[in-house]
Amino acid sequence: MATPTAQQINGALRGFDVLYGLELLDWSDTEARARVPVREELKQPAGLLHGGVYAAVAESLASLATALAVAAEGSTALGLSNSTSFLRPITEGVVHAYATRLHGGRTTWVWDVRFCDDADRLCAVTRMTIAVRPLRGEPARAPVA
Amino acid sequence: MATPTAQQINGALRGFDVLYGLELLDWSDTEARARVPVREELKQPAGLLHGGVYAAVAESLASLATALAVAAEGSTALGLSNSTSFLRPITEGVVHAYATRLHGGRTTWVWDVRFCDDADRLCAVTRMTIAVRPLRGEPARAPVA
Amino acid sequence: MATPTAQQINGALRGFDVLYGLELLDWSDTEARARVPVREELKQPAGLLHGGVYAAVAESLASLATALAVAAEGSTALGLSNSTSFLRPITEGVVHAYATRLHGGRTTWVWDVRFCDDADRLCAVTRMTIAVRPLRGEPARAPVA
Amino acid sequence: MATPTAQQINGALRGFDVLYGLELLDWSDTEARARVPVREELKQPAGLLHGGVYAAVAESLASLATALAVAAEGSTALGLSNSTSFLRPITEGVVHAYATRLHGGRTTWVWDVRFCDDADRLCAVTRMTIAVRPLRGEPARAPVA
Repeated sequence: MATPTAQQINGALRGFDVLYGLELLDWSDTEARARVPVREELKQPAGLLHGGVYAAVAESLASLATALAVAAEGSTALGLSNSTSFLRPITEGVVHAYATRLHGGRTTWVWDVRFCDDADRLCAVTRMTIAVRPLRGEPARAPVA
Repeated sequence: MATPTAQQINGALRGFDVLYGLELLDWSDTEARARVPVREELKQPAGLLHGGVYAAVAESLASLATALAVAAEGSTALGLSNSTSFLRPITEGVVHAYATRLHGGRTTWVWDVRFCDDADRLCAVTRMTIAVRPLRGEPARAPVA
Repeated sequence: MATPTAQQINGALRGFDVLYGLELLDWSDTEARARVPVREELKQPAGLLHGGVYAAVAESLASLATALAVAAEGSTALGLSNSTSFLRPITEGVVHAYATRLHGGRTTWVWDVRFCDDADRLCAVTRMTIAVRPLRGEPARAPVA
Repeated sequence: MATPTAQQINGALRGFDVLYGLELLDWSDTEARARVPVREELKQPAGLLHGGVYAAVAESLASLATALAVAAEGSTALGLSNSTSFLRPITEGVVHAYATRLHGGRTTWVWDVRFCDDADRLCAVTRMTIAVRPLRGEPARAPVA
């Protein structure tokens, strides 16, 4: 089976990733990149990009890259924890997300995700822990962990 | 100045909180409650409520309750960190969020936010750290921290 | 096999737990309590109880309670992540630790640990995530996760 | 005033850092390095380096480097949060710690600390958030945040 292209993945995005506007750029087992154009619908009351957007992008990038990597062995990926620190607000332009895998274990993968603005300033960082679990008949209703 | 009601606050929500559907129920300096109806637009590819939604709700609840509490002294509230653990997936119904303040310091407030499904099972938990900073002319463009 | 008493557990403590002075008070599958007397050897340069002591106590309490609970089914417990927030310094007396289980899953247990001083003021909080894994021949040299 | 050397800093270490054996190698405003020889007194019951040791080293490295950097402006540094993920156990040799500053704000500094074993394998990672606060008469007894 051929690896899907970023265009195919983006075409297959649905749900929340479409709602906030995730654009996947590329990915591998150890790196992934995406971006989200900032718009009014993504801001908090003071006019800054909402913290939940960073968390959502990190969650999707790390989960997607892990899931694509472990699918071949019949496993799936589920977020265990998402820890985001906010360093500098973004109010306009595009938020650029870079995910790097720190650890690819048998049952847990750990990723760092860095967020930069259009001037390439570091604005937020996320540590994502992803559980790798065997696929089952009804994974969606089973406890995550 | 009278304290705004939850209805007034909900009417004043805009941006991301409107996009994902935050419904604030009540709040004080030390507690806050909200809910979000689960819908297809809030899910990740496997059909579970997207992790970014929990993070967004926690961010908004803790930031809003802190901001309303410190506004009288001329301060504002900004998210410093958001650390969410995912315990059990939600696929339908309503996600119920309960925020409790652990610490109300001069420069930092810390909140715990618990998320339950309609059967009152604990599904996720967030620790939110909020910076309390003096209001300035152009806070939106200043570094957060 | 009888459940070990706190006295038996304390008598069996060794290594780092002995070095910093952990005193286990009681535990169950869902709660655990311990304390550590503050002394000069546990402080950082400014005279406050060192942040690493809180992290160590949380790690030990959550790991120990989980390990004792899952031993009967042939599993062991390993720390996956330790996230501690510091709220108020302690400079003397005893630090009192209270652990509460938030989630007891098949592969992951999540605990909250609260630290109070002798005046019962909340001084730090930890969220501990513990991996539950099958016991093997050489667990000590295998990757954690 | 001359910048203190690593030898001078190590000679001035006391309390917990001496107890577990911190050896500072070098530091600047944006990087810091240290190591700790593994010994029986630093282990948990299964024979692995105790998780609290990693947390303690990260806390000390980030606090020390920040404190030395902001002392000139009359400020001090206090740990706000310490979030450590455990990737691979260490049972012998030396643990090597590398701290990198992600953000140096007016009131908050954020550091990443990576821990490797003697084979240079990544074994743990910490995100440290340090509060920068004006020095006062009695900082040791004031609330951290």
